[in-house]
Amino acid sequence: MRVYLDNNATTMVDPEAFEAMKPFFCEKYGNPNSLHKFGSETHPALRNALDQLYVGINAKDSDDIIVTSCATESNNWVIKGIYFDKIANGKRKRVVTTAVEHPAIRMTCEFLKQFGVQITIVDVNEEGIITPDQLREVMGEDVALVSVMYANNETGMIFPIKELASVAHEYGALFHTDAVQAFGKIPINVRDLDVDFMSFSAHKFHGPKGVGGLYIKDSQALSSLLHGGEHMGGRRSGTLDVAGIVGMGKALELANKFMSFENSHVKRLRDKLEDALLSLPDVSVVGRRENRVPNTILASIKGVEGEAMLWDLNRAGIAASTGSACASETLESNPIMEAIGADKELAHTALRLSLSRFNTEEEIDYAIEQIKKAVERLRGISSTFAYTPEGHVSGL
Amino acid sequence: MRVYLDNNATTMVDPEAFEAMKPFFCEKYGNPNSLHKFGSETHPALRNALDQLYVGINAKDSDDIIVTSCATESNNWVIKGIYFDKIANGKRKRVVTTAVEHPAIRMTCEFLKQFGVQITIVDVNEEGIITPDQLREVMGEDVALVSVMYANNETGMIFPIKELASVAHEYGALFHTDAVQAFGKIPINVRDLDVDFMSFSAHKFHGPKGVGGLYIKDSQALSSLLHGGEHMGGRRSGTLDVAGIVGMGKALELANKFMSFENSHVKRLRDKLEDALLSLPDVSVVGRRENRVPNTILASIKGVEGEAMLWDLNRAGIAASTGSACASETLESNPIMEAIGADKELAHTALRLSLSRFNTEEEIDYAIEQIKKAVERLRGISSTFAYTPEGHVSGL
Repeated sequence: MRVYLDNNATTMVDPEAFEAMKPFFCEKYGNPNSLHKFGSETHPALRNALDQLYVGINAKDSDDIIVTSCATESNNWVIKGIYFDKIANGKRKRVVTTAVEHPAIRMTCEFLKQFGVQITIVDVNEEGIITPDQLREVMGEDVALVSVMYANNETGMIFPIKELASVAHEYGALFHTDAVQAFGKIPINVRDLDVDFMSFSAHKFHGPKGVGGLYIKDSQALSSLLHGGEHMGGRRSGTLDVAGIVGMGKALELANKFMSFENSHVKRLRDKLEDALLSLPDVSVVGRRENRVPNTILASIKGVEGEAMLWDLNRAGIAASTGSACASETLESNPIMEAIGADKELAHTALRLSLSRFNTEEEIDYAIEQIKKAVERLRGISSTFAYTPEGHVSGL
Repeated sequence: MRVYLDNNATTMVDPEAFEAMKPFFCEKYGNPNSLHKFGSETHPALRNALDQLYVGINAKDSDDIIVTSCATESNNWVIKGIYFDKIANGKRKRVVTTAVEHPAIRMTCEFLKQFGVQITIVDVNEEGIITPDQLREVMGEDVALVSVMYANNETGMIFPIKELASVAHEYGALFHTDAVQAFGKIPINVRDLDVDFMSFSAHKFHGPKGVGGLYIKDSQALSSLLHGGEHMGGRRSGTLDVAGIVGMGKALELANKFMSFENSHVKRLRDKLEDALLSLPDVSVVGRRENRVPNTILASIKGVEGEAMLWDLNRAGIAASTGSACASETLESNPIMEAIGADKELAHTALRLSLSRFNTEEEIDYAIEQIKKAVERLRGISSTFAYTPEGHVSGL
């Protein structure tokens, strides 16, 4: 059996979204900017896809959404755009963000330090989020931008974006949220959130890889990251990836259609899996269930190295992760577990399981069985410490 | 009949490339960075695609090619990277480029002026290119980067890149070429050209839209445009678009396989079409045939507005353009025709026809017939001037 429980890393393209994309490779392949039928025959599908996007997040109109190649591009765009617009030649020199953002935020901020950008990093609390009060403590009139993720990629914890945006605005700062892990999992309503910018990637909600977007409130000014031709109203140049855009629009429409399914069926399977994990001795899960997106579990299984667990699960056909796939190639402790105060050793025992609407009850039952088996085996042979249900003794 | 003669705007995905892409949407959809089978089962195809790319341009190894979302991104990356690396805090403040570059180069340079970047724009000669001597005249020790396109998108004229790169290097400057319009039309050999950077887009050589690349000689330093995770060796973040990369690799392999066909069959059809155009009175074509890529014709048909011609051809099922699709939405005179010294009026009569290996003799015969018909009709009803074969009289 193959069971995919790594949907926070990437998702399967919904076959219906792929069907919608198909004609735009070898049949309707024209450049939408061209003045002929090969170009204009792509317009209805493009228009429809942009409509699906702006309706899908309750934006004012389709001009407020600019298609990019991924959320990493969107994140870089916002931060570098604000750098050029407000910071390089302006008075506000500071960007405020959190300790648990995606590397696309953290590394971009880090890069800009050498060019005079001041970065304030707010640590998350024991729940793995930051509160409006925590944000207020570090705010000032020198802050150009606040960037806080909507839902954490590892814990699934949901940040109070509406309240955080409001605090940023009190100080005249702009507010950006990387909403990659919220899309398709909870309803997105940008008018209610009142954020200035929001990043997303299609491949996290059963759309194709290589396409994403940036919501820009009221089409406000933001220097382009990709300068060039007239595409996307001159805001993001590059020939439109028609197939990708069509796939993303369809995927968002489907995600919203299945939203209640996500929050009932998927949540129930997630809870069942989580309950089974918690029934094992010395297993903990990060974050309150009611404040998490419905598909994610970040567990710590004492005495079981995360990588060893992945290995066992992989041999059983189950895909999981120890954390973000964007930083998976090095054997490091899970950074969010460190951020919320877990000790180094515990942070090495992280196991992230992230479901999707394509998971079945049968798959979850199989996963529970295999995880239990792996825990037993790995605790039995642990080389770094001897595990006993009462605790573990280092160095044995 | 539908005849697509706008292949410099974009191309049909080769069905064989699309076949190669298909499994990576709904079947092998894992994130290549993930530590499980769903991730690793994408690796052989990714490795193969990167091999197809580096072999296809004779780069030293696959690390020298970084996949991006398009040449516009690659172009922005090189110029903004050099801005951050060399110009912002360095002594070399100048970028040298030409008057006929793609907007992704021109607009990026224009944007950076306000941040202290000096831009020198070299006008093209009457052939539509710049010579090494022209470049040498404007060079100095203050030049950080020279950026010159390999083949012009409108005329198809090939620039002497190897010689131009050599001049840039004499002065210690880096050399970049936007090779978008050369890929798939002439053999690309980066080691012979000795360029530092080269941009390309898959959708110009029968690969998918939304994916391209940047060749970086010897993997030299260049600040990222997309900071973030460890993808592409940390040089270009964002989850890898597996399907797109596989499609691009296959497309380049196919383009090289069909290179002699491109330079015999496609060239013969292009020449046939061009000869037919030139047999009409008062028609001229820009640039010597032997110095052009084999698929492109930029013609000026006196007395015939380019847009009116497109309209007639479109009704007959034929796709053509008046110039670049990246700046097609406004009714402007063709900039390269202005650059090479054509008067404003002539520059409004531009018609670009760009073929591909998928065009047939029958299609070209049909296009010739329809173009002749349109020229006759449009010269007959011209409202801005009465056309006679001996010349035209304005204001009648």
